[in-house]
Amino acid sequence: MNRQNILRLLEKIKQGTMTPDQGLEALKKLPFEDLGFARVDHHRTIRHGFPEVVFGQGKKPDQVAAIVRSLLSQKSNILITRCDRNTYNRVRRVSSKARYHDDARAVSIVQDSTAYGEGIIHVVCAGTTDIPVAEEAALTARLMGNKVETTFDAGVAGIHRLLSARESLARASVIIAVAGMEGALPSVVGGLFSVPIIAVPSSTGYGSSLGGITALLAMLNSCASNVTVVNIDNGFGAGYVASLINRKRP
Amino acid sequence: MNRQNILRLLEKIKQGTMTPDQGLEALKKLPFEDLGFARVDHHRTIRHGFPEVVFGQGKKPDQVAAIVRSLLSQKSNILITRCDRNTYNRVRRVSSKARYHDDARAVSIVQDSTAYGEGIIHVVCAGTTDIPVAEEAALTARLMGNKVETTFDAGVAGIHRLLSARESLARASVIIAVAGMEGALPSVVGGLFSVPIIAVPSSTGYGSSLGGITALLAMLNSCASNVTVVNIDNGFGAGYVASLINRKRP
Amino acid sequence: MNRQNILRLLEKIKQGTMTPDQGLEALKKLPFEDLGFARVDHHRTIRHGFPEVVFGQGKKPDQVAAIVRSLLSQKSNILITRCDRNTYNRVRRVSSKARYHDDARAVSIVQDSTAYGEGIIHVVCAGTTDIPVAEEAALTARLMGNKVETTFDAGVAGIHRLLSARESLARASVIIAVAGMEGALPSVVGGLFSVPIIAVPSSTGYGSSLGGITALLAMLNSCASNVTVVNIDNGFGAGYVASLINRKRP
Amino acid sequence: MNRQNILRLLEKIKQGTMTPDQGLEALKKLPFEDLGFARVDHHRTIRHGFPEVVFGQGKKPDQVAAIVRSLLSQKSNILITRCDRNTYNRVRRVSSKARYHDDARAVSIVQDSTAYGEGIIHVVCAGTTDIPVAEEAALTARLMGNKVETTFDAGVAGIHRLLSARESLARASVIIAVAGMEGALPSVVGGLFSVPIIAVPSSTGYGSSLGGITALLAMLNSCASNVTVVNIDNGFGAGYVASLINRKRP
Amino acid sequence: MNRQNILRLLEKIKQGTMTPDQGLEALKKLPFEDLGFARVDHHRTIRHGFPEVVFGQGKKPDQVAAIVRSLLSQKSNILITRCDRNTYNRVRRVSSKARYHDDARAVSIVQDSTAYGEGIIHVVCAGTTDIPVAEEAALTARLMGNKVETTFDAGVAGIHRLLSARESLARASVIIAVAGMEGALPSVVGGLFSVPIIAVPSSTGYGSSLGGITALLAMLNSCASNVTVVNIDNGFGAGYVASLINRKRP
Amino acid sequence: MNRQNILRLLEKIKQGTMTPDQGLEALKKLPFEDLGFARVDHHRTIRHGFPEVVFGQGKKPDQVAAIVRSLLSQKSNILITRCDRNTYNRVRRVSSKARYHDDARAVSIVQDSTAYGEGIIHVVCAGTTDIPVAEEAALTARLMGNKVETTFDAGVAGIHRLLSARESLARASVIIAVAGMEGALPSVVGGLFSVPIIAVPSSTGYGSSLGGITALLAMLNSCASNVTVVNIDNGFGAGYVASLINRKRP
Amino acid sequence: MNRQNILRLLEKIKQGTMTPDQGLEALKKLPFEDLGFARVDHHRTIRHGFPEVVFGQGKKPDQVAAIVRSLLSQKSNILITRCDRNTYNRVRRVSSKARYHDDARAVSIVQDSTAYGEGIIHVVCAGTTDIPVAEEAALTARLMGNKVETTFDAGVAGIHRLLSARESLARASVIIAVAGMEGALPSVVGGLFSVPIIAVPSSTGYGSSLGGITALLAMLNSCASNVTVVNIDNGFGAGYVASLINRKRP
Amino acid sequence: MNRQNILRLLEKIKQGTMTPDQGLEALKKLPFEDLGFARVDHHRTIRHGFPEVVFGQGKKPDQVAAIVRSLLSQKSNILITRCDRNTYNRVRRVSSKARYHDDARAVSIVQDSTAYGEGIIHVVCAGTTDIPVAEEAALTARLMGNKVETTFDAGVAGIHRLLSARESLARASVIIAVAGMEGALPSVVGGLFSVPIIAVPSSTGYGSSLGGITALLAMLNSCASNVTVVNIDNGFGAGYVASLINRKRP
Repeated sequence: MNRQNILRLLEKIKQGTMTPDQGLEALKKLPFEDLGFARVDHHRTIRHGFPEVVFGQGKKPDQVAAIVRSLLSQKSNILITRCDRNTYNRVRRVSSKARYHDDARAVSIVQDSTAYGEGIIHVVCAGTTDIPVAEEAALTARLMGNKVETTFDAGVAGIHRLLSARESLARASVIIAVAGMEGALPSVVGGLFSVPIIAVPSSTGYGSSLGGITALLAMLNSCASNVTVVNIDNGFGAGYVASLINRKRP
Repeated sequence: MNRQNILRLLEKIKQGTMTPDQGLEALKKLPFEDLGFARVDHHRTIRHGFPEVVFGQGKKPDQVAAIVRSLLSQKSNILITRCDRNTYNRVRRVSSKARYHDDARAVSIVQDSTAYGEGIIHVVCAGTTDIPVAEEAALTARLMGNKVETTFDAGVAGIHRLLSARESLARASVIIAVAGMEGALPSVVGGLFSVPIIAVPSSTGYGSSLGGITALLAMLNSCASNVTVVNIDNGFGAGYVASLINRKRP
Repeated sequence: MNRQNILRLLEKIKQGTMTPDQGLEALKKLPFEDLGFARVDHHRTIRHGFPEVVFGQGKKPDQVAAIVRSLLSQKSNILITRCDRNTYNRVRRVSSKARYHDDARAVSIVQDSTAYGEGIIHVVCAGTTDIPVAEEAALTARLMGNKVETTFDAGVAGIHRLLSARESLARASVIIAVAGMEGALPSVVGGLFSVPIIAVPSSTGYGSSLGGITALLAMLNSCASNVTVVNIDNGFGAGYVASLINRKRP
Repeated sequence: MNRQNILRLLEKIKQGTMTPDQGLEALKKLPFEDLGFARVDHHRTIRHGFPEVVFGQGKKPDQVAAIVRSLLSQKSNILITRCDRNTYNRVRRVSSKARYHDDARAVSIVQDSTAYGEGIIHVVCAGTTDIPVAEEAALTARLMGNKVETTFDAGVAGIHRLLSARESLARASVIIAVAGMEGALPSVVGGLFSVPIIAVPSSTGYGSSLGGITALLAMLNSCASNVTVVNIDNGFGAGYVASLINRKRP
Repeated sequence: MNRQNILRLLEKIKQGTMTPDQGLEALKKLPFEDLGFARVDHHRTIRHGFPEVVFGQGKKPDQVAAIVRSLLSQKSNILITRCDRNTYNRVRRVSSKARYHDDARAVSIVQDSTAYGEGIIHVVCAGTTDIPVAEEAALTARLMGNKVETTFDAGVAGIHRLLSARESLARASVIIAVAGMEGALPSVVGGLFSVPIIAVPSSTGYGSSLGGITALLAMLNSCASNVTVVNIDNGFGAGYVASLINRKRP
Repeated sequence: MNRQNILRLLEKIKQGTMTPDQGLEALKKLPFEDLGFARVDHHRTIRHGFPEVVFGQGKKPDQVAAIVRSLLSQKSNILITRCDRNTYNRVRRVSSKARYHDDARAVSIVQDSTAYGEGIIHVVCAGTTDIPVAEEAALTARLMGNKVETTFDAGVAGIHRLLSARESLARASVIIAVAGMEGALPSVVGGLFSVPIIAVPSSTGYGSSLGGITALLAMLNSCASNVTVVNIDNGFGAGYVASLINRKRP
Repeated sequence: MNRQNILRLLEKIKQGTMTPDQGLEALKKLPFEDLGFARVDHHRTIRHGFPEVVFGQGKKPDQVAAIVRSLLSQKSNILITRCDRNTYNRVRRVSSKARYHDDARAVSIVQDSTAYGEGIIHVVCAGTTDIPVAEEAALTARLMGNKVETTFDAGVAGIHRLLSARESLARASVIIAVAGMEGALPSVVGGLFSVPIIAVPSSTGYGSSLGGITALLAMLNSCASNVTVVNIDNGFGAGYVASLINRKRP
Repeated sequence: MNRQNILRLLEKIKQGTMTPDQGLEALKKLPFEDLGFARVDHHRTIRHGFPEVVFGQGKKPDQVAAIVRSLLSQKSNILITRCDRNTYNRVRRVSSKARYHDDARAVSIVQDSTAYGEGIIHVVCAGTTDIPVAEEAALTARLMGNKVETTFDAGVAGIHRLLSARESLARASVIIAVAGMEGALPSVVGGLFSVPIIAVPSSTGYGSSLGGITALLAMLNSCASNVTVVNIDNGFGAGYVASLINRKRP
């Protein structure tokens, strides 16, 4: 432990086996993180409940399995995003707790079931093709110890579906709104509910939807003041930030 | 009259003062439009009620006044878009019927008050800064003989304002929806009402609104099937097409 | 039926088994749509003749067949866009009325042959590669009860082909103009005929055609006032709006 | 009051002066918001502490003053963004509490000094030219009842300045990070501190900074998972969402 | 023949079996092209030597073969662009004169060996990957009766290769310059030689070459005044226009 | 004269006052252009008739006048593009032959009236706002010794105006087609006439016309094979290339 | 001095007035930079000769003067970029050594005339409008102690001008190449000379030059391997990096 | 040898078998490169140590092998970029020295082990997916005779990893920084170390990372003055320029 290294150094100075000048030089040569700045975050305890995340896309099943094995010793939950059943089958051999989520195209390994969240995170999406992104967000939030509710297929061209879910939405502490095409959902949701809205553009659409850029731009220009935006299809990021917001306060 | 020219030519052939071969050559040399193809539109009567339009931007008051003078002899209404009071003051000297519309930044001269429209055209806009475009659309539609109703400042982040106007909107035969920023209004309106929606992106906004491009893209990707789109800030075009759709059928 | 629910509630108040205060609370808790706002559209009858539409792209034959089966009980026509023969073969097992349209890459199921349209919808396209989009537009319009005429391969670089079809085009109440590459067709057609033109950019082309963006931009900047635009390759949307415009008036 | 309207209606039914059928019809005709759906938000009390905001840009001093006068009767704080001293001088005649903030180019009127926030909101920016945006964010958060700390001119090319402020940053519940040019600050801050980071791209820069688009894109692609993004130069939005996140929980 | 139709009509008028009024009506109903406006081009003879061109991409071998068969009766040369050997093999069964050009990915059928060109067309390209586009241009020009010379792999980073070919280039009447990546070749060539330069951007490159857009933009901004540009990879268009320029004058 | 330098060097070798080895070294050190490669163009005589061109934009009247004075000694015509009357007034003091062209925003000084062109160059433009660009093209072509005809305000939405000018257009050897907005004119003209078409996008338009980019893209994707394109508003470049094409052949 | 702070702390531990545990806590609370990490750069001496740079654009003369006054005490040279004569006049009151460079739009204050550079830096630019950017680069390099040579107005359309300067260019250790429009100069220069080329796109041009983006993209896609690129108009950055490359080695 | 040709010519003049006038004519007709201008670079010896490079992408194994065979006779090292093991297997048959580098997707053939570099080149990259690009850069630099050190997976969201490598980085003469996503690494590295930084954007990322364009733009707008940029994924170019910078000086 680094703390020990520095203490030992200071003890030597105390005992006179090292001069202060030598101590100064030694301090400067210590690996940076030994001084405790690896993560400058003081509320270190807040890190409990954060999942270990493996971005599965572009990685081979064996690679993912190797990473997972190295992570298992920590007690954190593990999330593998953007992977298929082949990867799952390989990972299951490493951990029998692995579970595949078809809609989210993800694998989860639950090792910590603590409820870290305080309120409810609600994930709403506009169309059926947005569901994989929405499910990735929901799964992330659940793995981070939150209660999650969902409303799918509630696009703004059928506003009544959104209004039908208003009781549930009004209960939420944070809302994640996923939409492709014109990306209007976060604005409408943001106008109806006063909580923070995390907007996720999806790559749903064709032609001038530009692979999600249209929805992204629309969300950034929302006329609702309570909307912030993450990258296209970034369900994980939305679930992650929503969990930070919803976290029980010390 | 061209019709007369051709008839006279055929008479000469009949009378033998011109051979058929000479006639063929003469026909080929006639100005194109003399053959009646200037406008291939057969329902020529449908043109009644169409205004003469002058795009005022970039034209000097004197230029506009000269154009207006040349148009007055026709019995059509006259619309001068994108002009200021200076232009109006100059035009008023040419026609005492000229009237300035502050919100629409336009001059109108009404010479034909026939009701060409059948139903009601409703113009709705999202924010106060969209009003000039919305008013340009409304004015155009009125000059083309339509009954027009308006709902302004009904952005999707305050959906209740839109719903408050639902009685009036439900009466409309065509709806023009103007919005800047995320451009979501046409989608919501298109989901609520089954009539054709003409969407007009406005250049309202800043940063990633890209001068209206974001709203334009959003509207083109509307999840409502009854939405078509015109160019950014093109209130005139929207009013024009809405008038065509609303026109009384023969 | 929701109407019944509210009536029953009001009856209870009348009968004194519920106080007005209790009634108010109960009203507020009713699902939103129970109050008749599911669709704010009052001219509900206008909905007759609207097809049920399944966006086939990205859906598996079994999924499409399941959706179709659930829709059959309604008497509407059914349209499945962007699907191949595999999907058709699967759907045919659900409904023997299913028919495949090669050019439009679509399946139709006709259950309602009412003539909802008043005039003629004309679909014109610029090149042979635009035909799938044009056929999708034509099929949509036919399924919505319209008489449809078509002129294919009439690009502006061969203006005589367009002029050859002028008699038919001049008869139309609405014209759908499909073009890729430079997207000039709607402007030329819009200049020749006074009816509403629905412009559909197609993704035909290469290099700087940018997958249809060039045609889209060109159409939005048409110098003809009677042109509105839908998304790239959105033949369905064009056919849908054209049908709304051409609909018999009450 | 609308509640009274409905109660009166139900009383009439109770008293028999109106039949249930008539009641149903009457209910349907009531303005939408009379049924309590104007804002679907049930935690209405959560709205306390929200400022009234006037987007000053493009509005004349007289217009702003008129809006402010109409808002004063509410007990909320008032924020006028993007305005100059002329507007301030005009507003001061309406309210002696008005105060001008040079750096933020904004006017504030404090009528409610309640501490709505729980933790500290820290606003950090990269360069001196980002300060107006950062100050707008800070002012917004202060007006919404939060304790705010700031660190300016801490760009990533001088990482030591950021690290110097680490004690203060580590105390924050939410961090707002403003940066133009390459927009890297939120990623570095997000890597150091585990709280939600609201990233604000600024239009600082030239050439390929594209008026802030480069910073915007960079922030959306942050490799730190705790970053969400608002529109270019949208300091207000960042301050608003940060305040929502930092709000005391019921 | 249409000319005959009109003559016959005029004869009837002459003979009195048709009145001039009837003649006028009949004239108006004739197909447009019957009046000789199918192609307004008076120098009709100039059309000799123009090849019939089939854009092969996206067409099946059978489709191409069918088109070719219908074109063979004309005496023109035939060019099938962007096709593979499968198409060639199918076409060869229709015409034994068909020849495949590997580099140009094209099939030619020569039926007219007239020398229509006056000077020499020189095709120069920057890299080896530009050769298919350059060869398409060269083949087109040859099929249109021109003498063609070529210099390949003469990019501007090795200016000596270009200078080595200066004798040949200086002989040319028109130069076609093909380049991908930074697209600088036409500027350098245009500075060295005073003849018209047709610049063809190729899609060669990666990353920020944007599929040829970078080269396209560079060519449009050439500091040489004698450069005009065609679409990305449009070797055919360049060869076609070069042939028009080089054509023997009447 | 450089030729003299080299000759003198060779004479020295002949006379033995310089060894061949020394001669080789000396040759290598000569300024590059001394060897006659300053311009590799062998048909040097072809340069006669080329105007000297000053790009006026961004230059002060005094700067332009100084450049003009230095050019006057050559016998070429002089063209100053993109300048106002102030510049003209200053230039007139340097040359009494200077003439200002209001529409083209250009100054010309004619010193050479030779007819270098063979046929006629026709400049056609779509709208009145395109006239400055069209006039710049026409003026350039005239200064380069060509006969020029023009047809203005012949946009494709009024195709009859274009067809009315068909006799004149059919006479042309080269056509320059200027258009903003959707940029469709070159395609239509290119379809009607077989000569080379130089397309000039103009920055006319608003919103999604993107300062001429839309017209530019449209022209690059023309379905007519005889169209090449120059930069936005580059009337000079179009006139220059058209003149090269139309030049009398040796 | 921080070094003293730490030493003092270690002395206390040595003397027993502070326990090692207390020392560890104290160390952690020291400002970060006290540990010598303010700049991790060990070759600190290498920083000698680096100028202090003030980005003048958007700063008022008084602001610039104040910054300059605070910098004067250091012995470094001072460079104020993008400023006008007003700023210069104000700065001159602070330092009589201030000198204004018209072409570079910059102020320099020389306090250190050491020759830090080893070879020669050559700045070449394509057109006269690129000169301000080129001069900014040259001035920066001179202030950093380098010998600088320049060749201006050597665009690739007149390759002979570039070749004329080849003797000088061949002497250079680094070449800075500035160009707008098609940005081809760095590729040609990079092909001729084997040293590192720093390419600077300038915002020279119009229409599709897109304010320098076209030149930027072209340079990034250079077919010469020895080219790297800085931001549009960033003469300072190019001069700075060239100076780093040319720096005498320890 | 060309030198011989010219010498022989001069000898003839000396001997009187050729007149100086004839000599002048003969000189002008010699191939350009015979005069020694093939490469204007005088420090020809500096070319030693430059590898021969084959861009493997899009080339067939046989093609690559043929090129390699022709290059082997030179004593240079050979680098084949962007190729797979199939190509390697084919090349190995041509040269037994060929070695495949999995991470860099490249083949190297070492024929020259001279140490041309003076200091150390350090290659740092942000994420594991950037490693192929980083390895291509490292391999290039090694083949050009440099000592290379690497630090991989040191993204800015984990700044401590970068700081841990500071000893090694501080030793470097040039640093190559590879990053995708937000591309912030070069700015942070450039702020910490005073040497030239070559920034390489990688195409790592998804959604609005736009295939590397976001990272590219961010790097071009770096707030660190010592950063220059190469094309997306251009590891080779970065290694090449770094080698030029690090080269031992004569």
